Amino acid sequence: MFLSLFVALKSKATKFFKRAWKTGMDEPKKFIHCLKVGMCLSIVSLFYYTRPLYDGVGGNAMWAVMTVVVVLEYTVGGTLYKGFNRATATLLAGSLGVGIHLLASKSGDRGEPIIRGASVFLIASAATFSRFIPEVKSRFDYGVLIFILTFSLVSVSGYRVDKLFDLAQQRLSTIAIGTSMCIFISILVFPVWAGTDLHRLVIRNMDKLAESLDGCVSTYFDGGIRKSEEEPGKKAQGYKCVLNSKASEESLANLARWEPGHGCFGFSYPWGQYLKIGTAMRHCACCLEALNGCINSDIQAPEFIKKHLSDGCMKLSSHSTDVLKELSNIIKSMEKSSNIDTLLGDMKNQGKPDAAMTNVPLMDILPVVTMASLLIEIAARIENITDTVDDLAAMADFKATKDQSSEKSTLQDEMENMKELQEV
Amino acid sequence: MFLSLFVALKSKATKFFKRAWKTGMDEPKKFIHCLKVGMCLSIVSLFYYTRPLYDGVGGNAMWAVMTVVVVLEYTVGGTLYKGFNRATATLLAGSLGVGIHLLASKSGDRGEPIIRGASVFLIASAATFSRFIPEVKSRFDYGVLIFILTFSLVSVSGYRVDKLFDLAQQRLSTIAIGTSMCIFISILVFPVWAGTDLHRLVIRNMDKLAESLDGCVSTYFDGGIRKSEEEPGKKAQGYKCVLNSKASEESLANLARWEPGHGCFGFSYPWGQYLKIGTAMRHCACCLEALNGCINSDIQAPEFIKKHLSDGCMKLSSHSTDVLKELSNIIKSMEKSSNIDTLLGDMKNQGKPDAAMTNVPLMDILPVVTMASLLIEIAARIENITDTVDDLAAMADFKATKDQSSEKSTLQDEMENMKELQEV
Repeated sequence: MFLSLFVALKSKATKFFKRAWKTGMDEPKKFIHCLKVGMCLSIVSLFYYTRPLYDGVGGNAMWAVMTVVVVLEYTVGGTLYKGFNRATATLLAGSLGVGIHLLASKSGDRGEPIIRGASVFLIASAATFSRFIPEVKSRFDYGVLIFILTFSLVSVSGYRVDKLFDLAQQRLSTIAIGTSMCIFISILVFPVWAGTDLHRLVIRNMDKLAESLDGCVSTYFDGGIRKSEEEPGKKAQGYKCVLNSKASEESLANLARWEPGHGCFGFSYPWGQYLKIGTAMRHCACCLEALNGCINSDIQAPEFIKKHLSDGCMKLSSHSTDVLKELSNIIKSMEKSSNIDTLLGDMKNQGKPDAAMTNVPLMDILPVVTMASLLIEIAARIENITDTVDDLAAMADFKATKDQSSEKSTLQDEMENMKELQEV
Repeated sequence: MFLSLFVALKSKATKFFKRAWKTGMDEPKKFIHCLKVGMCLSIVSLFYYTRPLYDGVGGNAMWAVMTVVVVLEYTVGGTLYKGFNRATATLLAGSLGVGIHLLASKSGDRGEPIIRGASVFLIASAATFSRFIPEVKSRFDYGVLIFILTFSLVSVSGYRVDKLFDLAQQRLSTIAIGTSMCIFISILVFPVWAGTDLHRLVIRNMDKLAESLDGCVSTYFDGGIRKSEEEPGKKAQGYKCVLNSKASEESLANLARWEPGHGCFGFSYPWGQYLKIGTAMRHCACCLEALNGCINSDIQAPEFIKKHLSDGCMKLSSHSTDVLKELSNIIKSMEKSSNIDTLLGDMKNQGKPDAAMTNVPLMDILPVVTMASLLIEIAARIENITDTVDDLAAMADFKATKDQSSEKSTLQDEMENMKELQEV
C-alpha cells in the first residue's frame, strides 16, 4: 500500500519536475531571472549579516530584504514600476504620517487617539477607493498599497517625533539602497524588457494569423479536409493564440511605459499603439474562428462548386497572407515598406467574387459561399490592421525605404477603382 | 496664466471626482469595501496604540498592520487566498529558516556565512522559479513571495536561536490575529463572494449574448440598417463584453475556489465549469462579431432576397435567443428546465435554409447568405453552450422541475430527424 502510494507520488513529482524543466529550457530567461533573485538576496543578506550596521532584523536590514523580494520583477518595466511606486509612496505617506503625528501629539490626551483613528480611517478608505479607478489601478496600484501601509505604520508607532525622523530617514535610505540595487541588476544583468517582449509577441501573433489563414483555406480547398494530418491543422489553430493574448498584451504595455529607451525603442515609444494593433488582430482572428466553423461543417459543397470558387478564394487568401507577412516584416524591421501598398491593392482587387452562379441548391453552396464572404470580411479587417500599423509607423518614425508618394497615389487610384467596381 | 492653469486643474479634478463618484454609486459594494478597510485598520492601529504590548513599530504591531493592509481583499475568496497563503508560507519558511539557522550556527565561523548565503541563494532561486509554473502561479503566487521573504528575513537575522523562537512565535501570533480579523470582517460585514460575482457575470453575459443576437438580426432585417437609432445598436454590441470577460472570469473562478459554501453554492461547487461555459459563449460571440461585419457591409442585398430569407433567419434567431434566455434562467434559478429540450429542438428544426434560389448574382446575395450561414453556425455553438450548462447542472445537482426522461427521448428523435434531413 505504502509502496504504491510512494510510486504514485514519485511519478507525479517526476512529471512535475519534467514540466518545470521544460519551462526553463523553453525560456532560459526565466532561469536567469531566478538566479538574479537568488544572487540579489544573497548579496543583501550577507551585506547586512556581515555588517550589522543597525539593530538587527527588527530594524532596517529587514526593509532592504523586503524591498529586494518585492521589487525585483521579471521585466525591467516591472522593477521600475514597483521601485518607483514603493519609493514615492513611502516618501509621501511618511511625510503625511509625520505631519499628522505632530498634529496628534499636540492635541492632548483626549484628542490624540481620535485624530489618529480618524486619519487612519479616512486616508485608508480614500486610498483603497482610488484603487478601483482604472487609471490608478493600472499605474499606481502597488504605490497606493504601500502608501496605506506606510501611513498606518507611522501613525501606529508611538515614537516621539525626533526618533520618528531618524527612523524614517534610515528606512528611506534602506529602501533606496534596495530599490536601486534591484534596478541596476535588472537593467544590467541579462535585462528582460517588457517592451521588447510586447514587440515580439505582436510580431509572433501577426505571423500566426497569417499561417492560420493560409492553413485554414488550404485545408479546405486544397485536397479537402485533411483532419488526419497534424501539421497544417496545428498551424491553422494559431489564431487562438491571437484571441487569447489580450491580457498579456495589456500587462506588457503597462510595464513597457515605465521603461527607458532601449535597443531601437526610444523613450516615448508609442506602446499603446501595440494594443490597438492587437485589438485589430483579434477582430480579424474572430472571423477566422467563424471560418473554421465552416471548414468543420457537416455540409460539404459539391466538388465542382468548390473548384469553381477555390481559385478566387485561394488567391484572396494568399494575397491577404502576403499583406499580413509584410506587416509583420514592417514591425520587425521597423522600416516602412514600399511593397505594402501594392500587396494591399492586390488583396483589394481580389476581393470581388465571380458573378452569377445559378441553379444550385442554396443549402449546398452555403459553406463555400460563407467561406468566400468571410474571406472578404477578413481582407477588410486586415486593412484595419494595416491602418493601425501605419499609425505605429508614423508615431514611432519608422524609416522609409524609399519615396512612397508615387505609390500612395497609385493606391488611391486603385481604391477608387475598387469602389467603382463594387458599385457596378 | 496661473489662473488659467488653476482653472484647467480644477476642471480636471472635478471630472476625476465625478467619475470616481459614479464608480462608487454604480457599485456601492466598493464603497463599503473601502469603509471596511478603513475600519479594520483603525481597530488594529488603536488596539496597538492604546496597548503597546510589545516594542513599538519595529516589533509586532507592524506585522498586524501589514497583514491587514495586504490580506483584506475585495472578495471573501481573495481574503482567504491571501490569508491562507500568508499564514502557511510564514510557518513553513519560518521552520525551514530556523532549521538552517541552527545548522549554520553550529558550523563554525567559516562555514556559517557560506551556508547562509548558499541556502538563501538556492531557496530563493527555486521558489522564484516555481512562480513561473502556471498551477503554482494561480493558487500560491502570494504564498511563495511570502515564503521567500520570511526565509530571507530569518536567515539575515543574527539572533541567537532562543530569541529567534520567541520572535517567531510573537510574529506568527500577530499574523494569525491580523488574518483572522480580516477573514471575520470580510465574511461577516457585507461579504462580497467571488463565486456569486462569477455566477452573476456568466448570467449577465448570457443575457447580453441573447440581446445582442436579437439586436443584430432585427437591425438587419427589420427595417434595414438603423444606424441612427441608439438603443438597438447599443444592445447589439453586448457580445463585446462577452469577448472581453475572459480575464475577469478566470480571476473570479480562481478566488471562488477558496470560498466556503455560501448561499446556494455548496463547498465543492464546480466553479471551473463556469469557465467552460464562458469559453463556449466567447466561441459564439466570435460568430456574432463576424455577423456584425455582414450587417455593416457595403454590399446590400436586394430587398426581395432579404424578404425571402428574412422569415427563416428571424425565426432561427428568435429560437436561438429563446434557448440562450432559457439557459440564463437555468443558471439563475439553479433548476433544470423542462423547456430547454423543446426550445433546442425548435432551434435545430429551424436550422435548415430554404432550398434552391436561382438566377441571382452571387455578389448580391453574399451578405445575406453569409448571415444565414453564420446564424446556423451560431445555433450550433449555442448547442455547445447548452452542453456545458447541462454539465454544470449535473455537477452541481440542480433541482429537476419534473421528470425529463420522456422529453430527452423526444429530443433524440428530433436530432435523428435533423441528421436525416441534412443527409437528404
